[in-house]
Amino acid sequence: MTDVLLRGGRPWGLDAPADLLVRGARIERVAPGIDAPGAQVVGVEGQLVLPGLVEAHCHLDKTLYGGPWVPHSADDTLAGRIGDDLARRAELGVPSVERIGALLARMSAAGTTHVRTHTDIDPLAGLRGVEAVREAAATSPVDVRQVAFPQHGVLTNPGTAELLEEALKSGVEAVGGLDPAGIDRDPVRHLDLIFALAERYGAHLDIHLHDGGSLGGWELELITERTKALGLGGRVTVSHAYALGQLDEPYQDRLAQGFAEAGVALATAAVYSFPVPPIKKLRAAGVTVACGHDGIRDLWGPYGSGDMLERAMHVAYRSTFRRDENIELALEAATYGGARALGLEDYGLAAGDRADLVVVPCGGPAEAVVVHPARTLVMKDGVVLHN
Amino acid sequence: MTDVLLRGGRPWGLDAPADLLVRGARIERVAPGIDAPGAQVVGVEGQLVLPGLVEAHCHLDKTLYGGPWVPHSADDTLAGRIGDDLARRAELGVPSVERIGALLARMSAAGTTHVRTHTDIDPLAGLRGVEAVREAAATSPVDVRQVAFPQHGVLTNPGTAELLEEALKSGVEAVGGLDPAGIDRDPVRHLDLIFALAERYGAHLDIHLHDGGSLGGWELELITERTKALGLGGRVTVSHAYALGQLDEPYQDRLAQGFAEAGVALATAAVYSFPVPPIKKLRAAGVTVACGHDGIRDLWGPYGSGDMLERAMHVAYRSTFRRDENIELALEAATYGGARALGLEDYGLAAGDRADLVVVPCGGPAEAVVVHPARTLVMKDGVVLHN
Repeated sequence: MTDVLLRGGRPWGLDAPADLLVRGARIERVAPGIDAPGAQVVGVEGQLVLPGLVEAHCHLDKTLYGGPWVPHSADDTLAGRIGDDLARRAELGVPSVERIGALLARMSAAGTTHVRTHTDIDPLAGLRGVEAVREAAATSPVDVRQVAFPQHGVLTNPGTAELLEEALKSGVEAVGGLDPAGIDRDPVRHLDLIFALAERYGAHLDIHLHDGGSLGGWELELITERTKALGLGGRVTVSHAYALGQLDEPYQDRLAQGFAEAGVALATAAVYSFPVPPIKKLRAAGVTVACGHDGIRDLWGPYGSGDMLERAMHVAYRSTFRRDENIELALEAATYGGARALGLEDYGLAAGDRADLVVVPCGGPAEAVVVHPARTLVMKDGVVLHN
Repeated sequence: MTDVLLRGGRPWGLDAPADLLVRGARIERVAPGIDAPGAQVVGVEGQLVLPGLVEAHCHLDKTLYGGPWVPHSADDTLAGRIGDDLARRAELGVPSVERIGALLARMSAAGTTHVRTHTDIDPLAGLRGVEAVREAAATSPVDVRQVAFPQHGVLTNPGTAELLEEALKSGVEAVGGLDPAGIDRDPVRHLDLIFALAERYGAHLDIHLHDGGSLGGWELELITERTKALGLGGRVTVSHAYALGQLDEPYQDRLAQGFAEAGVALATAAVYSFPVPPIKKLRAAGVTVACGHDGIRDLWGPYGSGDMLERAMHVAYRSTFRRDENIELALEAATYGGARALGLEDYGLAAGDRADLVVVPCGGPAEAVVVHPARTLVMKDGVVLHN
């Protein structure tokens, strides 16, 4: 494999332009004026160099991406969307390896190198979703990690717990949860069950929490307590956590402190008009914040492009971030924050890190988020995928 | 001027594909299989044909568009943004005919044919903004209509009222207002003053209303009462109207009824996390809803692309519109709604209407909003501008 020299870019976080030498799947050196005889030289003068974008929350198995437009057919309730989803999946051929592959190709072209996806697990679908995602991921350069996701409840949907365990045995990296109170009606048993699975299989945990206000706040306490008690810090993520954006500041502060101490990460998607967690406060407290699209062009809603810089724009916009240093927090969520939440190793722009890179034709990170122009170059494991 | 035949497109609102024959600046005929010897034929088979997009609320005079990235430098308060704006305008050369021209060119490429822009009027700047916008508009195909906008208050900023009148005398099409209570501190005198100006000069009125909750609701009542009493229906728009998204449903219903009866239109931008008015309810009551970007890449914030289909996406997304017929309401705001608010004549896709057209490579209107791909063709007054 020929070395690759990215010439004259601006690696994010450095004060001055620097060349970046890639050898094999790793970054070999980052410095100005590198002389690398024999290397393939790619001029990226004045352009921003980022580590690979991390999609930390999506639902690949549900997607209709790349196919014809499908008008949304559910009514405006959660129950309506669940019922519509179940009813129309067979008709539309969901999960579809082809659709998942089309979306992964789009994500890759936009610079996403790592994806965490929540795959539906229930007694009707069994592990079909897990298998479809695996099959599509096998031929994609994107590193795809699945969450065994009980979309239709665990306790309220007998047989699901066993399937979650089966998924973990088959190598799925994380176990999911879903509104332990609002949907599954018994938060203590729900959380005990999924935390036990995570512990037993050395898996990550990523819990959908739409429950709002004081109920959601209390569930965040339960999650924090369990993470601390079981020493699962760094392996637990709460997704959406709308409650966090609704509670008063002192309560937000207490919860943020708890997440930081216990090692609980937050993943936000900033979808529709739902509350966005207070990212600035969470980061100041030392909490990992990641982000993702949530659904992309599926029966739950028609939106989403697969571009994580555009998604970071939504996160920054909904957070009313105007200043560069604040907008950069959204980019941090779409890169390093996601990498920490997923437990990626050797992620970054330093010598020795994996050569997962994106080049954006912008002068700086805030502009990259706001404008999110087409990527100049995408590299995964040292291989130039798009240029 | 050669006739132009758009062949095989799907004019929005028709059930089947139809050709569209343009003669001079007008649509001559819309029908399947038109035979037009000598016409320039443009094949747009299967693509959506829309009337020109209408940007109903922006601030061209403030823009830094097309120039280098300018990090946002204000603090997170309205007073901070006003102060920063005043302090840095000279340094950055705002208003800039070049920057305004760059933004108009971008808007036109994205299919915008008509713009209403709020131009700052105050004793410091005088009418410089009005003149700069006029100069840029003179060489643009976009139809630009200005609102003389008292960004820094009317009653609280002596000399402004006289300048508003001077602007109207010079041909500016509308007079603006700004938070008659929250900013200008005397809603009755503020509204009486600008309504009197609108009446005297046969001008439109477009009032920025950020005031929230019951205060904003009450100001909406005052505006409705004056519109009705003076018979100015069809010439009055309230922009933003955050309060509408915060009030309870019965009060929303009463206000919507009042707008419909009096002929008050609403313009929303769906910016940041600010409340979006209840568009579905307003449309059901018969109220005109328009939309626009608000600021685009200026000292008030770095966001905004100038693409009205993308802006319609924000409007639909923040309204949690998932179904096609709801998403279409956002497109209606970016087209017919804007046209009604601005008082455009002969706007639409019927024979006799002005040939202001956009072709989007999508099968339908909801997809056009959600995906907002690059435009296939833009036509203004029968002239193909982009193809």
